[in-house]
Amino acid sequence: MRENRLREVWREGRTAVNGWLQVPSSFSAEVMAHAGWDSLTIDMQHGPVDYGSLVPMLQAISTTDTVPVVRVLWNDPGLIMRVLDAGCYAVICPMINTREEAEAFVGACRYPPEGYRSFGPYRATLYGGQDYTDHANEAVVTMAMIETQQALDNLDQILAVEGLDAVFVGPSDLGQSLGHGPGTDRGEPEVVEAIERVLTAAREHGLVAGIFTGSPEYASRMAGKGFQFVTISSDVRLMASAAAGAMTAFESE
Amino acid sequence: MRENRLREVWREGRTAVNGWLQVPSSFSAEVMAHAGWDSLTIDMQHGPVDYGSLVPMLQAISTTDTVPVVRVLWNDPGLIMRVLDAGCYAVICPMINTREEAEAFVGACRYPPEGYRSFGPYRATLYGGQDYTDHANEAVVTMAMIETQQALDNLDQILAVEGLDAVFVGPSDLGQSLGHGPGTDRGEPEVVEAIERVLTAAREHGLVAGIFTGSPEYASRMAGKGFQFVTISSDVRLMASAAAGAMTAFESE
Amino acid sequence: MRENRLREVWREGRTAVNGWLQVPSSFSAEVMAHAGWDSLTIDMQHGPVDYGSLVPMLQAISTTDTVPVVRVLWNDPGLIMRVLDAGCYAVICPMINTREEAEAFVGACRYPPEGYRSFGPYRATLYGGQDYTDHANEAVVTMAMIETQQALDNLDQILAVEGLDAVFVGPSDLGQSLGHGPGTDRGEPEVVEAIERVLTAAREHGLVAGIFTGSPEYASRMAGKGFQFVTISSDVRLMASAAAGAMTAFESE
Amino acid sequence: MRENRLREVWREGRTAVNGWLQVPSSFSAEVMAHAGWDSLTIDMQHGPVDYGSLVPMLQAISTTDTVPVVRVLWNDPGLIMRVLDAGCYAVICPMINTREEAEAFVGACRYPPEGYRSFGPYRATLYGGQDYTDHANEAVVTMAMIETQQALDNLDQILAVEGLDAVFVGPSDLGQSLGHGPGTDRGEPEVVEAIERVLTAAREHGLVAGIFTGSPEYASRMAGKGFQFVTISSDVRLMASAAAGAMTAFESE
Amino acid sequence: MRENRLREVWREGRTAVNGWLQVPSSFSAEVMAHAGWDSLTIDMQHGPVDYGSLVPMLQAISTTDTVPVVRVLWNDPGLIMRVLDAGCYAVICPMINTREEAEAFVGACRYPPEGYRSFGPYRATLYGGQDYTDHANEAVVTMAMIETQQALDNLDQILAVEGLDAVFVGPSDLGQSLGHGPGTDRGEPEVVEAIERVLTAAREHGLVAGIFTGSPEYASRMAGKGFQFVTISSDVRLMASAAAGAMTAFESE
Amino acid sequence: MRENRLREVWREGRTAVNGWLQVPSSFSAEVMAHAGWDSLTIDMQHGPVDYGSLVPMLQAISTTDTVPVVRVLWNDPGLIMRVLDAGCYAVICPMINTREEAEAFVGACRYPPEGYRSFGPYRATLYGGQDYTDHANEAVVTMAMIETQQALDNLDQILAVEGLDAVFVGPSDLGQSLGHGPGTDRGEPEVVEAIERVLTAAREHGLVAGIFTGSPEYASRMAGKGFQFVTISSDVRLMASAAAGAMTAFESE
Repeated sequence: MRENRLREVWREGRTAVNGWLQVPSSFSAEVMAHAGWDSLTIDMQHGPVDYGSLVPMLQAISTTDTVPVVRVLWNDPGLIMRVLDAGCYAVICPMINTREEAEAFVGACRYPPEGYRSFGPYRATLYGGQDYTDHANEAVVTMAMIETQQALDNLDQILAVEGLDAVFVGPSDLGQSLGHGPGTDRGEPEVVEAIERVLTAAREHGLVAGIFTGSPEYASRMAGKGFQFVTISSDVRLMASAAAGAMTAFESE
Repeated sequence: MRENRLREVWREGRTAVNGWLQVPSSFSAEVMAHAGWDSLTIDMQHGPVDYGSLVPMLQAISTTDTVPVVRVLWNDPGLIMRVLDAGCYAVICPMINTREEAEAFVGACRYPPEGYRSFGPYRATLYGGQDYTDHANEAVVTMAMIETQQALDNLDQILAVEGLDAVFVGPSDLGQSLGHGPGTDRGEPEVVEAIERVLTAAREHGLVAGIFTGSPEYASRMAGKGFQFVTISSDVRLMASAAAGAMTAFESE
Repeated sequence: MRENRLREVWREGRTAVNGWLQVPSSFSAEVMAHAGWDSLTIDMQHGPVDYGSLVPMLQAISTTDTVPVVRVLWNDPGLIMRVLDAGCYAVICPMINTREEAEAFVGACRYPPEGYRSFGPYRATLYGGQDYTDHANEAVVTMAMIETQQALDNLDQILAVEGLDAVFVGPSDLGQSLGHGPGTDRGEPEVVEAIERVLTAAREHGLVAGIFTGSPEYASRMAGKGFQFVTISSDVRLMASAAAGAMTAFESE
Repeated sequence: MRENRLREVWREGRTAVNGWLQVPSSFSAEVMAHAGWDSLTIDMQHGPVDYGSLVPMLQAISTTDTVPVVRVLWNDPGLIMRVLDAGCYAVICPMINTREEAEAFVGACRYPPEGYRSFGPYRATLYGGQDYTDHANEAVVTMAMIETQQALDNLDQILAVEGLDAVFVGPSDLGQSLGHGPGTDRGEPEVVEAIERVLTAAREHGLVAGIFTGSPEYASRMAGKGFQFVTISSDVRLMASAAAGAMTAFESE
Repeated sequence: MRENRLREVWREGRTAVNGWLQVPSSFSAEVMAHAGWDSLTIDMQHGPVDYGSLVPMLQAISTTDTVPVVRVLWNDPGLIMRVLDAGCYAVICPMINTREEAEAFVGACRYPPEGYRSFGPYRATLYGGQDYTDHANEAVVTMAMIETQQALDNLDQILAVEGLDAVFVGPSDLGQSLGHGPGTDRGEPEVVEAIERVLTAAREHGLVAGIFTGSPEYASRMAGKGFQFVTISSDVRLMASAAAGAMTAFESE
Repeated sequence: MRENRLREVWREGRTAVNGWLQVPSSFSAEVMAHAGWDSLTIDMQHGPVDYGSLVPMLQAISTTDTVPVVRVLWNDPGLIMRVLDAGCYAVICPMINTREEAEAFVGACRYPPEGYRSFGPYRATLYGGQDYTDHANEAVVTMAMIETQQALDNLDQILAVEGLDAVFVGPSDLGQSLGHGPGTDRGEPEVVEAIERVLTAAREHGLVAGIFTGSPEYASRMAGKGFQFVTISSDVRLMASAAAGAMTAFESE
């Protein structure tokens, strides 16, 4: 089976730099896959990508060795199994607030007896190899988003769930939940403290910690603190800010 | 009828800053339409956009007052009429090398008696207004690409075609045709001279001159010389270069 | 933030006339958006529209000032948040039968602390404006469908849920639930009485009452009774009945 | 091979009532196919339907015995052959102005030795039957649009082309060409006379005459004159006018 | 209402031979619909078909008298109702493990008072006829997948659910659940015994038993044992194995 | 630049076994790309694939080292350039009947000064590498279909066109043109002789000869004769015949 390079990066103690895809196009996905990210996350929660556009995007990413990741819409076992069948190697699940939710999520990502994933890796075997089924339980990465006060309250129980590989901090929702409004690259002490608490707890449980950031500078700072999976911006934000920059540069000449 | 703001910009002696769309997605098109470009050109020649994705992209642009432009695949009357029916306000036609080709192109953009455009503006009336047909011949901008030695040889005859509004320099094809390889923002004297010849001739014939550029700096320089329609990069190049920049910034922190 | 014109209409004591879209095409959506409806509801429950076709339809509607509304497939928080992210200004949720269901629905439409909506208004900021997040909780309209005996039994509890703005009567399902078969524009005393009970209760709780109708005559009658949101037919029924009418007229000439 | 019912209708001396499809949706196509039209024409010239949406629309029509017709974008042999391969039973070709154009059009619709159609009826055999190839040259109907002064000038030569089955009057383009602006259901004497001239000439050559109309009343009148193929309105116009009618009825109650 | 031929086949004591569709294309669906299967199941669980591609596939199948069946992604009432609205005549629901799950599934397939299906058969009336609603509760076939140890434990309770018509054995998941890995056409005694137990119990409850197989030989054997619904391979596996066979034949010549 | 493995196969004197894709799905394309073909030809002439589905199919093929080939709809320079831009490595052009047509075709595939291909390899550089432009003229394979009596008459002139790499026999059209009806794997002496004449002439001009066949046996025979590019069946025919075979096997058990 094709190795999951995220696990390799983490074994080596490095930080995976993750890109983010919101544009439902296999063409822009392929362009991003050539940009050098360790992994690319296709966002099915906040963006127009649906299952019909997901599969060609995964195929486009598969023309390179960038690791394909999917953030699912919700903690929905049918959908989670289905993105795995399509050949993604890691799933990010939003809004994991309790141990039960974490267990349901992880179980959907693992074949029996570790979990209750249904069999039918219709494209995962094309991407991963004919022996995909034998190794999928070890290869596939599960990432639970920690983004509410409730999740913080249940942090240790969530992190203790067998088969959970990583947590991923959603700074906007976490900030909202803590009463500070949305936004990435947070500076409010309460939010910063919460983020660091997630990092510390994850490491104590032997899990990888990840975070969504809005700039390479902040991402780099987070990597320095110990986050081993950092997302920098997204396809559409990179495009929009580059467009704004071009306009400004044109006018200021 | 909704005015064609390109004509307004030009009447005021300003240079229209044009964005370029290759990603076949109405979502990225809408994001770009909010970025402040005077116009956005959807490229049907070199990119994956086909007619099925064109219409939603035009609708997305229509949520703003950015002027919708289409570069067609080829000097094909059926296709040219069809992109106009869909509500674009300017057509860029590649590879206009002779007067006959220019006449065929312009004729396809004008209703009789000025041309031979077939009637059926199925979306143009939604975008332009119920009186679209009365004013379309005056409103729609026709832009012929000058990008070969043959076109340079026939320049005056092409520019003299009644109803042609503008020329658009394709620096890659022009460079190739002159034996210098592809690329934007040209420095080879022979290519520079050819570009300036197009500009001068266009102004002599009272036409607008436009050019595709790869950077705001070069675009600004061209505007300074008298080009009144400058394209800066494209959606996918802006995204790719911003991604590369983010990666570099992350690593250099 | 762009105002929600439905709220304006209701503030003025008027009845919003709502169109209904089942055809998964941004072209027919744009045509309907030019027809003068106060709002247009895209139906994701009973029709072929899925998320992939929803976004271009919302963009098409956004070329006009018709208010975009979505009826979601089911009381599913992930989907509800996602249609809001795409920029609709009101959500109609089917089969709200209990207070808990109403709370789950409304909570999915409101950012914390009012609810638990996740942050990521990827297109809502394009449509609504950069300050969308600040005002979304006030702007977005929540409409619960009352269409079963169980919902009637729990009517007061449902209507008392904080943040619920309106109820919407589904006459076919309500009729079926009461043992009278499907159909709009009901005449059976039991069904009529149930409909009026919903109207009365809604007004007592200060909520708007809406209803799906099959004809302008019945819609007008309902508006007269106090319904402030009336749906008349749908794109596909309008088309089919106009086609039948044309055929009859042709033959009878 | 499945019979072409248009030929049956014409053999019986009746007039085929033809619907018109511009919405690129197989759902609305199927709804229209149930409305009782003798045939339905999918318009690839003035509307958003492209080849990707055409095939599912033809499949939708094939669930009924309504005859599938396609108006192609242009007199382009590759495209004409391709819509026939997809299983349409009649092709309407716009802007046939000369005998040569008519010959090229008809030749593209006929297998050798009658024409030069390339072999590959990938869906036509599913629709028509395994013996499709044996009978296609007799079954497929060819309709040339007569819609310019030039076509009127060359009318007899066009009508004399072997294998041409019918002519179809495009009143908007014909009106424009004659200097009277676009529009259906013409009353200008010069246009009326031209239309009648086409009808007379077609009958003299033993061809069927067809016309696009905007109302059942006018269509009925044309049928009375001898037109055996009348198009009444289109899916999107039927929908738009029914919507406008509903709005008016609502307000006038 | 159009009859459900599956019920006819079963009434006659025959076994329905069912094909399986994973390719999200209405063209390959139509080709398969002409291949002579009694029914065709579109798989929305393990394959790329989503709702946007489902509807054209159902239309393609509807050009023949092959019975359209859908396997849904999950036991989700909104989705189940929606595939029925689109006109499928049988629903296969994965992972039915308890009586409650079976009741929820069956209830979603039946209009009140038998169930809680919401009214809106937008395409089912086109396929089934205008009286669809009157007969749908009797016509639509419900099939619960039995594919876990838990389902075996609860087998009698599941089979006793009013309105359940059939069970369908998923040999891969069942094998995994019993500790034997995935695969069709099982030979392990424990799995074989489980499969036979399902068959026996189904017949005792008067239900039809179905099974997914990987070869016509095994399917035939299962039919001989009493399975009345056998699935043989899938579109994509038939294609892949035929391609491999062609390659081998070419090389061995 | 990524090598064109077709040229490698031919250099080694071997015969390339080519698969054929008609189903417009990137999923079935990826499955076929894993089946071991040397190359896969996506058919845009006789099948539902249009440009919108072509690009994801090319991406799917690019996940393997199968060489991507496209048969274009017609000898249309815009379309030919566009499929090359999308990253195919060989173009098959139907109906090349004269030297002028062959020159137009080959010229569209070559950058100046060898031809007149316009610059814009938007995906070809992703697939082929950043130095694609430098080597494309040597790498891209041009294949002219010889399939009419006229082409046979002009065979030597066609084969002499500079830059033409291969010819491809279309046996159905050739058979029709010679008066023998469509079909692959021809046995009529006149057709066989014509096919052998093409083969002989191609070899004399140093060109590769290819042919479309309907069975591995015939393909193998043709390879034995010297054809170095043999197409065996197509995705949809493989699927259909495997389905028929399964049905027969089931019934005969």
